[in-house]
Amino acid sequence: MASKAKNPREAIENLAKDVVKDIEKGKQPQFDVPIRSLSNVEFNKKSGTLELGNKTAERQFFNVAHAKKFLQTIEVARVAHQLLNIGKHASLRDVYYMVKRTIPNTKTDVVDEQTESDKAIEDLELLSEFSREQLHINANKMGSVAGKVIIEDAGDTIDWSRLGSGGWSVPSNVENIKFKKVDADYLIYMEKAAVWERLHEDKFWAKHNCIIMSSQGQTTRGIRRLLQRLSEEHKLPIYVLADFDPWGFYIYSVLKFGSINLAHMSETMTLTNARFLGITADDIEKYGLQKNFIKFKDVDTVRLKQLSEYEWFKNDKEWQRQFKMMKGFGAKAEIQALSARGITFITDKYLPEKIKNKEYLD
Amino acid sequence: MASKAKNPREAIENLAKDVVKDIEKGKQPQFDVPIRSLSNVEFNKKSGTLELGNKTAERQFFNVAHAKKFLQTIEVARVAHQLLNIGKHASLRDVYYMVKRTIPNTKTDVVDEQTESDKAIEDLELLSEFSREQLHINANKMGSVAGKVIIEDAGDTIDWSRLGSGGWSVPSNVENIKFKKVDADYLIYMEKAAVWERLHEDKFWAKHNCIIMSSQGQTTRGIRRLLQRLSEEHKLPIYVLADFDPWGFYIYSVLKFGSINLAHMSETMTLTNARFLGITADDIEKYGLQKNFIKFKDVDTVRLKQLSEYEWFKNDKEWQRQFKMMKGFGAKAEIQALSARGITFITDKYLPEKIKNKEYLD
Repeated sequence: MASKAKNPREAIENLAKDVVKDIEKGKQPQFDVPIRSLSNVEFNKKSGTLELGNKTAERQFFNVAHAKKFLQTIEVARVAHQLLNIGKHASLRDVYYMVKRTIPNTKTDVVDEQTESDKAIEDLELLSEFSREQLHINANKMGSVAGKVIIEDAGDTIDWSRLGSGGWSVPSNVENIKFKKVDADYLIYMEKAAVWERLHEDKFWAKHNCIIMSSQGQTTRGIRRLLQRLSEEHKLPIYVLADFDPWGFYIYSVLKFGSINLAHMSETMTLTNARFLGITADDIEKYGLQKNFIKFKDVDTVRLKQLSEYEWFKNDKEWQRQFKMMKGFGAKAEIQALSARGITFITDKYLPEKIKNKEYLD
Repeated sequence: MASKAKNPREAIENLAKDVVKDIEKGKQPQFDVPIRSLSNVEFNKKSGTLELGNKTAERQFFNVAHAKKFLQTIEVARVAHQLLNIGKHASLRDVYYMVKRTIPNTKTDVVDEQTESDKAIEDLELLSEFSREQLHINANKMGSVAGKVIIEDAGDTIDWSRLGSGGWSVPSNVENIKFKKVDADYLIYMEKAAVWERLHEDKFWAKHNCIIMSSQGQTTRGIRRLLQRLSEEHKLPIYVLADFDPWGFYIYSVLKFGSINLAHMSETMTLTNARFLGITADDIEKYGLQKNFIKFKDVDTVRLKQLSEYEWFKNDKEWQRQFKMMKGFGAKAEIQALSARGITFITDKYLPEKIKNKEYLD
């Protein structure tokens, strides 16, 4: 791997120069790409995140098994270089179409499926040591944010506290955002847009001096990166508000400890200081949410077992207690079940009390 | 049905008074609710939208088959009335939890599934003649918007042209937005957030004096209502930019002609002047997009046949030509396939030329 370049463009150019050098020396060009599979992912207890190990795979040009992947890597590098040159960004899907073509005089396409260009882009992240976002390649845009924060982005000054009922729409790429003012004691991230709208209508962020952020369903990389930047650059505690179900716990797990797919991005993507604010098994009992239980299906039972065996949960007494209680209930519950106690119960009582009493899980 | 009330609160109160009157007269309380199924939905050729017919169903309190639905309607009316009283909004899911409880001395719950409270809310829309949004009940939040537009919303003045790379996050409820300035010749709505980010990065809306809006996947009611308000209140032509596939065509169909589910909302939800900007079968040939075809699966073939038999497409020569060409291709293509011709091809050439040459489908 080339030594750390000053910027993504230089990193790609260095890669290309290495290939040229190999050719000029009469050596076959090759890349050494870290292996991104379970066999090379380990939990770093010191940093508390999933990380890639040291195993690498060679990607050689004169090797029938490697040649196509080699070419794919070169092709996405070409596209990224071009994007950086013209100062434009592309989506993963765009890049797929930009590299997809039939190799002259053959019936072989450079890529057949987007998964192939996506993998090549991940390789390029590792080879260049710059993130996909820094290489001007974005995934999907999702989510909203509000709070007493002023940012500069794409030439505009934006006040997150003055955007009506909608809030600021979080872009897929947040690398170039400049924080001008961050007046907040903590940040609450929630998986559900409807819960965000609840807190926003109640001006929770103004009353409690915090930032509220949501996506809808999956946590996009744009959201994760924005959370991480606020957490690291502004020392904000991050609270995760998710359903009481294996999926809600998993969202927290990914945010805090990373995931196998993104083990190579742990440094810029994980939130080592994230805390799980709820819903917990204790909340279920305290607030009588059993009435609104949703019975476990087999898939929930399996998922819960997997979670309980994760290395970072395995020896954590508190989390094991949660898993055990959930298993005992044989049921899950949604955040919105709190609405059964009144539409603003979550704002007036649940969240303020939990935060005040430090009733979160680490 | 009660005569049109001044506001949603009064409408609910009128409903309640009618029930009380019936009881005082010794009559059994009942609602007459318009039937919302295919048998009572018709295409109004004059308005060009799907509408409900005149058939109604009685919902009687002393009828074993009706009593539960009667109660559900009363319950969601109670919740809506409460929300209106305290000036708060709730999501469909919240309302489900707010009405869900066991009827005293029975083992029967008021609602078992969210579909039941959703249906009761639709009944309430019909009975009160106010939309769910006006009754303070929202669905999910989704989507972004940018353009030279200034609005007032929830006490804030928001300039859609000065929100960086993210844009304004469209709320689930847009009823209370006030348009202070709308400087645009037309609006482009696209299904994909990634395409929106493309046009936004290229400042398409500034160069071509238009508004760009997207959701991700489904078109939410918030988005539909915002489109409709801009279209009606500001006479903006609406262009729909979707994939060349039966699903893309269907998105356009629902926006323009309505859907069976929302036939009772046609007046406030359909965009009778919407135009399909692309991708069309002609674009496929003109720009050589065949290279990026995605082969039809059986489900696509079936869907295409259904579309071609819709009453509003059945006798439309131009649409039938599109369907026939798609069938002939046996394949679909995505908007992003245009990226194969260069990342800004869509901004620099495709859209400006199509709009200039009026190459859209009505």
